[in-house]
Amino acid sequence: MDKLQTLKGFRDFLPGKMVIRNEAIRRLRAVFEKYGFDELQTPALEYAEVLTGKYGEEAEKLMYLFRDPGDREVGLRYDLTVPFARAIANNPALPKPFKRYQIQPAYRAENTQKGRYREFYQCDVDIAGSSSPMADAEIIAVVNDCLSALGFTNYKIRVNSRQVLFSIMEKAGVEQPRWLTVIRSIDKLDKKTRVEVEAELDTKGITKEQIKSVFEAISKAKPDDFLTTTLAYARSLGIQNTLVFDPTLARGLDYYTGPIFESVVEEPKIGSLTGGGRYDGLLKTLGGPDLPATGTTIGLDRVCDVIEELNLWPNLPKTASKVLVTIFNQNLAQEALKIASGLREKGVNTEVYPSDNEKMEKQLKYADLKSIPFVLIIGPEENEQGVIQLKNMQTGKQETVKIDELVRKLSF
Amino acid sequence: MDKLQTLKGFRDFLPGKMVIRNEAIRRLRAVFEKYGFDELQTPALEYAEVLTGKYGEEAEKLMYLFRDPGDREVGLRYDLTVPFARAIANNPALPKPFKRYQIQPAYRAENTQKGRYREFYQCDVDIAGSSSPMADAEIIAVVNDCLSALGFTNYKIRVNSRQVLFSIMEKAGVEQPRWLTVIRSIDKLDKKTRVEVEAELDTKGITKEQIKSVFEAISKAKPDDFLTTTLAYARSLGIQNTLVFDPTLARGLDYYTGPIFESVVEEPKIGSLTGGGRYDGLLKTLGGPDLPATGTTIGLDRVCDVIEELNLWPNLPKTASKVLVTIFNQNLAQEALKIASGLREKGVNTEVYPSDNEKMEKQLKYADLKSIPFVLIIGPEENEQGVIQLKNMQTGKQETVKIDELVRKLSF
Repeated sequence: MDKLQTLKGFRDFLPGKMVIRNEAIRRLRAVFEKYGFDELQTPALEYAEVLTGKYGEEAEKLMYLFRDPGDREVGLRYDLTVPFARAIANNPALPKPFKRYQIQPAYRAENTQKGRYREFYQCDVDIAGSSSPMADAEIIAVVNDCLSALGFTNYKIRVNSRQVLFSIMEKAGVEQPRWLTVIRSIDKLDKKTRVEVEAELDTKGITKEQIKSVFEAISKAKPDDFLTTTLAYARSLGIQNTLVFDPTLARGLDYYTGPIFESVVEEPKIGSLTGGGRYDGLLKTLGGPDLPATGTTIGLDRVCDVIEELNLWPNLPKTASKVLVTIFNQNLAQEALKIASGLREKGVNTEVYPSDNEKMEKQLKYADLKSIPFVLIIGPEENEQGVIQLKNMQTGKQETVKIDELVRKLSF
Repeated sequence: MDKLQTLKGFRDFLPGKMVIRNEAIRRLRAVFEKYGFDELQTPALEYAEVLTGKYGEEAEKLMYLFRDPGDREVGLRYDLTVPFARAIANNPALPKPFKRYQIQPAYRAENTQKGRYREFYQCDVDIAGSSSPMADAEIIAVVNDCLSALGFTNYKIRVNSRQVLFSIMEKAGVEQPRWLTVIRSIDKLDKKTRVEVEAELDTKGITKEQIKSVFEAISKAKPDDFLTTTLAYARSLGIQNTLVFDPTLARGLDYYTGPIFESVVEEPKIGSLTGGGRYDGLLKTLGGPDLPATGTTIGLDRVCDVIEELNLWPNLPKTASKVLVTIFNQNLAQEALKIASGLREKGVNTEVYPSDNEKMEKQLKYADLKSIPFVLIIGPEENEQGVIQLKNMQTGKQETVKIDELVRKLSF
């Protein structure tokens, strides 16, 4: 049979990548739980009816919709928000406000040329059932703590609100049907120059005078009452220098109804890693209950790719194993296993070379390939004297160690 | 829109269930890593060609095969062994022997009447690239440690081998083409009586004399050389009383080529939780490289269901939150948030009631519903005096505590 590949846009996560993914998820989970969010998981497959008619035709072209062996119309999870709405509707006994986090893959038949994956992990944190700015402030605090827990130091959380944007449009005298198209251009000010954005607005038929007024209104914009309270609460939660009011932030999506937030890592320059906001009407539109909601998504694949590419966690061990116990020969195999078993009992992650009939050279090579920090060798002499040879694979140094002292030597 | 359900055989995992699942996975993962297994994850979707032609027609009827939006023939993961073989083939640089664990859902359109899920988690631990009994002994040791780490006390690991079964058939004079059908009946001796199994063999046309010889050969059966070494190694790894040689164990599957093992929890009576064995030819048959392999699967859904049903972990907290900080009113909201932030900084999992405009009664009810152990109340008097009210939700006891003492009170 031919060697078969993974589908385009789908990836194996080999051990080296998994170590980073697991560490990132462990850190994020710890933050979510510190804030009292509980985990929810939903199925990969849903009735097609749950998924379709929610995000427009373009989105539906990217959905994996098909007939299952029982001839039901089904589809793969497209995001975590629709299943969130469906799960709340199906489980009325869930305490409200309902605070949940969810870390699961979603599926979209995207153009892979753009560096997008077709199976990608979403990591969503939401509060459903509170219309208070306190809920928005908690989400902002979660984002702040997540970035900090992941080890990013130079980042900003840009905050704005739908009301601020609308008020800018009103003051600038833009006709209401054009608000969204103007806002979409304004939103690009973090990537384009003012001149470029002005040119774009011009092509959209916005008058020179209106454009001038828009930028004037932006320069004078202030948070509205709701956002002011949100920011005050976020500051009480300890978020100070990282919080920035940015009246040009819009985050494309039309379903936000209040505060909007996005986090941007400035050093290294990698753009936005999280985005979210308040979406009070959406859960109902998606087939869920009529509950106000606010939340954020964290780009887990992006986070992990960036950490790996930039080697942000240089000290993260590449394997969980602390030591490889080699097998000198069949006669000494049982002695080696007893030592391995003793180390494991003491909590030392201990790998045994899984063969009793392999050259020592190959066993050492294996430890090297897997980046296992230490190797134990128990030869005939060592066995007689109740000692072992302990080799530090990084320094190459080898020393004779009494078995009783082994645990101490390996616990650091 | 109507309230839409999950598909039959698919489940939401609500927070109460997730707590148990995460704890089970955490414990299993710790064991796998103690033995030097690294994690592998593979995509949910594969080319249909990767999945089909491997497990026979009956299996293929259960597969979720379809055309993706790009008109490729694809299918959902049916198990973790086929992707394991494919991933090894695709990634020749992986160090060999390759030891991996994998915890991911698989998809089968099973008859749900039998209590089966169509999305179910598999948890596989395998070693590819070693033909030594040492590899089998390591797998047996992993199974033993997993059951022990999950909190089961009264369990046995039944061990046998293909060679022992064939030797029984040979000694009993059964004709070779009938070996597998006889073995399949013999395998039922853990659930049926000897008389019932004899009757079944009779209907299969096995002579009375042969049946008698089979049982005689079983009573005299001894482990072959390979299994003897495997058992000796497993004992050196500290497995003693739980290991049982059982010459009637066959585990149905035809692809095992050496030792076979299965773990059975005897108290509570819940049957087998793990099963595995050596499968030297299989990886190649599945499209992978020609490597000997051995491993086990752990029935994660079963494990979690059993732990939940029997309440085996009564002390596992139902939520990660240690305390709920209530919001007395809007004027005192910022004080409450500062206290919450301080607790979080000290590592106390602290939930803030996410509204600044809710009756205290409802906030307490929320803490109760979520089983949060403590509640903090900061009213006007408390705020003036630099204290808080700390309510123990289990005892109902309420005490006045200085803010400085709070962390100590909540850290236990």
